[in-house]
Formats: sequence, structure tokens, C-alpha cells
Amino acid sequence: MSHRQLHLNLFLMGVGHHEAAWRHPRTDPADLGSIRHFQRLARTAEAAAFDSVFLADGVEGPDPSARSNAWVGHFEPFTLLSALAVSTERIGLIGTVSTGFTEPYNLARQFASLDHISGGRAGWNIVTSAGDRAARNFNRTANQDHAVRYQRADEYLRVATDLWDSWEDDALVFDRQSGQALRPGSLHELAHEGEHFQVLGPLNIPRPPQGYPLLVQAGSSEDGKDFAARWAEAVFTAQQTLAEGRAFYADLKARARSHGRSDDSIVVLPGVVPVLGSTEAEAKALDAELDDLITPERAVRTLSSLLGVDLTDHPLDQPLPPLPPVSAINGAKSRFELVRDLAERERLTLRQLIGRLGGGRGHQVVAGTPEQLADHIELWFTQGAADGFNIMPPLLPDQLDHFAEHVVPILRERGLFRREYTGRTLREHYGLPRPANRLAALAANHQ
Amino acid sequence: MSHRQLHLNLFLMGVGHHEAAWRHPRTDPADLGSIRHFQRLARTAEAAAFDSVFLADGVEGPDPSARSNAWVGHFEPFTLLSALAVSTERIGLIGTVSTGFTEPYNLARQFASLDHISGGRAGWNIVTSAGDRAARNFNRTANQDHAVRYQRADEYLRVATDLWDSWEDDALVFDRQSGQALRPGSLHELAHEGEHFQVLGPLNIPRPPQGYPLLVQAGSSEDGKDFAARWAEAVFTAQQTLAEGRAFYADLKARARSHGRSDDSIVVLPGVVPVLGSTEAEAKALDAELDDLITPERAVRTLSSLLGVDLTDHPLDQPLPPLPPVSAINGAKSRFELVRDLAERERLTLRQLIGRLGGGRGHQVVAGTPEQLADHIELWFTQGAADGFNIMPPLLPDQLDHFAEHVVPILRERGLFRREYTGRTLREHYGLPRPANRLAALAANHQ
Repeated sequence: MSHRQLHLNLFLMGVGHHEAAWRHPRTDPADLGSIRHFQRLARTAEAAAFDSVFLADGVEGPDPSARSNAWVGHFEPFTLLSALAVSTERIGLIGTVSTGFTEPYNLARQFASLDHISGGRAGWNIVTSAGDRAARNFNRTANQDHAVRYQRADEYLRVATDLWDSWEDDALVFDRQSGQALRPGSLHELAHEGEHFQVLGPLNIPRPPQGYPLLVQAGSSEDGKDFAARWAEAVFTAQQTLAEGRAFYADLKARARSHGRSDDSIVVLPGVVPVLGSTEAEAKALDAELDDLITPERAVRTLSSLLGVDLTDHPLDQPLPPLPPVSAINGAKSRFELVRDLAERERLTLRQLIGRLGGGRGHQVVAGTPEQLADHIELWFTQGAADGFNIMPPLLPDQLDHFAEHVVPILRERGLFRREYTGRTLREHYGLPRPANRLAALAANHQ
Repeated sequence: MSHRQLHLNLFLMGVGHHEAAWRHPRTDPADLGSIRHFQRLARTAEAAAFDSVFLADGVEGPDPSARSNAWVGHFEPFTLLSALAVSTERIGLIGTVSTGFTEPYNLARQFASLDHISGGRAGWNIVTSAGDRAARNFNRTANQDHAVRYQRADEYLRVATDLWDSWEDDALVFDRQSGQALRPGSLHELAHEGEHFQVLGPLNIPRPPQGYPLLVQAGSSEDGKDFAARWAEAVFTAQQTLAEGRAFYADLKARARSHGRSDDSIVVLPGVVPVLGSTEAEAKALDAELDDLITPERAVRTLSSLLGVDLTDHPLDQPLPPLPPVSAINGAKSRFELVRDLAERERLTLRQLIGRLGGGRGHQVVAGTPEQLADHIELWFTQGAADGFNIMPPLLPDQLDHFAEHVVPILRERGLFRREYTGRTLREHYGLPRPANRLAALAANHQ
């Protein structure tokens, strides 16, 4: 039995990760707007000792002119995760927030506040936000270029981490006798003057229990991987084959090393969509049933946007037309390549591609028995492709309940996954250290 | 017995509204960072059937160079109030957020999310934020002028309310058969192109249960009162005498009428600091004990900033020096006038003024028995100076517990305050209507 342990994250994707989940009789679409539903999901994941739950996010509404809209409806991350913080005790709470459309001061204090409320369980999934529609909600006519977005993100991270460091850990003294609440010299201004941001500091809330929230990232473009190698402590990724998964894993760890970081300092979590049945046939039937619920018109529109080519009038039973070069994509570059390669490798028609993407949106779909899914997880975990998994149940809560009840016990039997929590903070769950305070060290050196 | 009922809001000011509260043996300074403390306060207020709790806010940290810092330590409003939303069932949750340093799209969806999570209990205390230190955390070298801040706030409110209206109330249909989640034509773009904001819309979350969160305002300058008359549904205010309170009340209702609004459409809530004892002497002793805990050095610095004049070397036992004209104040203009008038009217020395401001920060301090406080409340309520009160206990939870246990029963005996909740939403508690959807009406007119 290995001492290396799997990490498991639950993707809180409304009533399920499958794009047609809300049409399936095992879900209730009203759950999309129900805080009780999300409380139930988080508590189920916590009872199974998952490391964390995770909320994706975007900052644009549905296009009113689209003829067929499936609202994937989400609560806003800080508000939802704060509600979940006091509804749970141990599980980590990871929220997606964009560096493109927020101010570092606001974001740093919201995450600090969430980390204080949860007793050290906050994580930030850092995104730069693609798409012109999002930009047009924030005083811009179009989004910034991919490279500029990552430059801004890099400066943003410097400012945010410095803001978390702007209070030394022992700043609060509350000396009633003298009336001194704060230890003199324990707070620091940043006086940051950069290309994108000018921020004075200090923050107006003490350093978070974890030092920083756990820093998570999911971009897999070249810019994205470089950014991850510098900043990320956990990485969500979409990998279709074991070979691709191993290559990505090795590449990311090597990039981290080139920044002076150890292999253990970055946790790689591929996504997997578990479509579970008590037999393989039952699982495959559920998978097919879900794909039959996809509305082709909407799926084609989504795919057109992803691939940068209008597929609206393309025959469903033909292969894809020629695609633009990746350099022309100013959105999710790595997802573009993944879908392009998948379609080419398996010579898929447009209809087949839609089916493959409806459940996984680019992630592995494993339709099978709990044993088969456990085999898949163990293979990737032991063959250098994963430190754990981002679990994306296609139907919620249904398929999470199946996973917790049937897959988790097998992983435990095999010595791969914890039977109970050993730590209290999200960093402790992932085996990651609490960061030292850079500004405190600087101040000490100047004395 | 009148059918007109008092409204009560609890000001969630850390361990107490008195600036030296944390030094008093009846508080625990660790409560400042404890979510359990705030949960306890909200539940106590809810058990007493208060209309709402309220969190003040600012976006600047303590000045590291100050020799004596009393951290008033606050959680960030959206995160704290979301945690309280699932810790309570009926009480309203009002958070202060600045129009100066946030994007309307982010704010509108965070309030919408809080309103959904709480089942219609969110309120927004709208501030424009004074002070250059805050501005320097947000890419500015100095704050905008008072008038510009209010112009921006006015446009901000137009955008935010339109974003809440960008989903019609019956937009969600979830037709599983057709795959249509949203009713066609039920979502609207704003395509707002203004002086301060360009926002496309729609929002990415359905219309809040209350339509909009309750709109609250606390600025009492001319700009502030005009803004309140246009937008605010509840107003927090600091008034020292019954005559001033009546004049403010009448003025605000008249301004609201000039915008075509009824007197009932705006609820006026002066602040009151209840310093309670079982005898008047006991209450006065507590009041004196608290004032003795004020650190004069820090209080003088705070007052210098408020009055726009450096009082650091001014003798504590002399009256104030000449003050600048109110036109020179780019911060809280009405608070400047209140403090200036208080000092002149009562011929206070600097030391006396500090004592008067330490507990109330400009608000009425009533040190007495529960009967005496109830008399004060009834007088203001029946004499045209208040629709209710913003209750600011100097020590928390201690003085809230006293208020709930001893003052609330007297108010009920007198028929002034509800025995239990009759509504479910914050708007219902305050007797305010759910706003109609402006964009839906516009769209209907164009058909």
C-alpha cells in the first residue's frame, strides 16, 4: 500500500456536468437556484472526505438573441462558497474569479474573508476570461489579447499575494492596557506602481489563516502553463488519453522545477466524468441516454464559438471543415487544440463530436462500473498522469451519491484515498505548505 | 395602539459601536475575527424580530505609520452576509458596498446571488467612499470630488437596477421536452453607454427574489439627500436633537415627494447608541467607563481627519480652533457639520467632544434604563423624526442582549414593535413594495 494519497475535488456544476443534465428525469432543474442543493452536494463530498469542492464561473449572461438557451445558472462564487463555509467544517472551497474584470484589492479581501470564515479552506481558481461578450460588461469593446491577459494576471498575482502579506501573522495584539490593537511595524504598504495596477495597501483584514488561499489554475495553453508553473499549487486539466495526460503532467512538473519549485508543490488534477452503473451496460445506456438529450442547435453554436468557425449550416453527419490556426484563437487555446485533435484522431462527424463533448466538455468520460472507474483512476494516478482527480458527475446529486457510495470505498480498499481528514485547512488536505510572508521578510531585512 | 410599527436594524459593529469597546472587559477582541460571534449577533437580533442587520464597510487598511491603531476589523460584506444568510431564516442582511471602487456587473450579481441564497433578504447600503487612501488602493492618486462621486453613483444605480431587470421574472421555464430552459424574449441587453460605464448585459443570474435588494443610503449632505430621494428606500442618519431629527425627516420625505414618491416609500432610521443599566446611575457609569477607555491620541487623529484641520497639538481642554468652511470638505460633509454644530452648541472642549463622539460617532447616545430608552424611541417615532432606529450597541454581544431582553418587550407592550415576523423578505419587513421590471415593461411597449 502506497503512502501517496489521491486527491479528489468535486466540480459543483449545477445539476450535473453533462450539458443536458437538467433535461434528465434524475435531476430537478429548480436545484440550479437552490442553496440547499449546493449545501447537500458539499456535505456529501465532505462526508466522503473529498479535498475540496470547486465552482466554475464566467461573467456574461446568456445571449438573448440565441434561439435555444440552456441556462447553466450559477450563484456567484464568493457568496455561494461563504454560505457553504458555514454549512461544512472540513472540505476546501475553491472559487473561480477572473483577473480580467476585478480589482486586486477587492478580490484579495474577499478571499481573505472567505478564508477567515471557513477557518482556512479557501482556494482561488485563477482565470483571465476569454470572450468579447464578457469584456463588454466591463467598459471594454473587446477582450484583451491572450498574452496581455496573462501579463495582467501575473501582475495581479504579485499584488494580491503582497496584499495578503501586508499584515504580519502576529500583527494583532489587542493590548487592552495600552490601547494598542496592532503591533507597531507589523503592517506594510505595498505602494505598488505597475503597468496594470497601482495599489497602496495594506489590506483591511488580517492575513488569511492559510497565508494565501490555495492558488489553482486551469489554463493549458503555453501562456497558461507558464503561469501555472510560476503561481499555481493545483491545476485542473482536460486530458483525453493516458499518453497525453502523462506528457502534460511531466511537462508541468518540469516547468515548475525550472522556477525552483519541487514536484510536490503543484498538484495535477485531470477532470473525469463518471457515468456509473451497476453493470457496464447500464452505464453505457445512461451515457447514451444523456447524449440523446443534447439539443444539436445549441451544441453547434457552442462548438462554433470554441473553434472560431461558423458550423451552423454544416451537415451534422460530415467531418469538420478546415479549422483556423490556433494562433487565431483568442479564447481557450488549449481547449481548441484538444477538440481539434480529438476530431481528427477519431475521424468524428460533427454529430459524433457533439456527443463526445456534451458530457465531458473535453474531459475524459468513463462510463462503466465503480470497479472500472477505480481502475481508471488508479492507472492514471500510478502511471504519472495525475495526483488526483476533478470529479465531474454528469447528474447531480445522483452520480455524486453513486461515486461516494461505490467508488470511494474501492479507492480506500486499495489504499489510494484517505478514510478521514487528517488536516483542517485546504492546504493541509492537498499536502501544500503555508506560504511565508514576503513583506515581513523584506521588512526584517531592512531593519 | 397605533398600527404603524417601528423598524429596528442592528448595526453589526464588531465587538461594539463604542470605539474603545474592545478594551472593555465585557467584550472579547477575538470576536472581531470570529464568524461564530456574528452568527450569534444575527440570531439574537432575529429572535427579537429585528427587521435587519447591517454591516458598515470601507476599502482601506490601517495606516502603518500611525502610532496607535485600533483595528475595527471587519469581514468583507458579501462573504459575511452570505454566511449569515444560511445561519438565519428571516432577518434582513444589509451590506455596505461602494460605487466608487467596484464594477456594476460584479456588484449586481453578488447582491442578486445573496438575495437568492437568503430567499429575498438582501439590502445594499450605497456609499460613494470618501478618502484618498481608499482611492490609492484602486489605481487612483486621489479620490474623485464629492459631486463626481454622486454622478457616478447615479449612473451606477441605473446600470445595476437595469441588470437586475435584465431577466424577466418568468424567464425560467425549464421545458425538458423542447430543451428550452429560458423563455425566448425574456432576457434583455442593456447596451448601456454612459459617462462612467459601458455595460452590455444581461446579468448571468435570474432576477433576485426581491426584484432589487433593498436600497439603503446614509449620506446626509445635499448631494446625499438628493440621491436618497431618488433611489433610497431606507436611510440611516445621525441626528443629535429631536428638532434636527424632525427637520431631516420632513426634508427627506419632501424631497422624495418631489420625485413622485410617497412618504411611505422611504424609511428613515436614525442611529441610537443604547447604553443600558438597571438604573440610570448604572448606565451613566458604564458610559463614563467606556469614554475613559478612549485613547485621546487616536481620537484626535480621527477628528482631525473629519474636520479637515490638524488638532494633534491642540490643548485637550480648550474649545476647537476655527474650522474650514464645509465647501472645503471632500469627505463626509454632513458629519462635519454635525460635529461642528455639536461643539459650538454645547461649547465643548476637545476632550469633551472626543468623549461625546467615542460612543456615538455622531449618533445619539442614550445612557439610561430600558424604560428611558423606550421613551426616547417612542418620542422620536411619534413626533415625526423616525420610522425606526438603527441600533448601535456600544458593547457586543452584551448590550444587544440587554436591548433584546429588556427594551424590545417594552416596545411591544406599547404596541410599537412586532411580536413576530409577518413577512419573509426584507422588503416585506420594511413594508416596501417589490419593484416592477423596467426593462420588461419597455420590451412590452415595443411589441
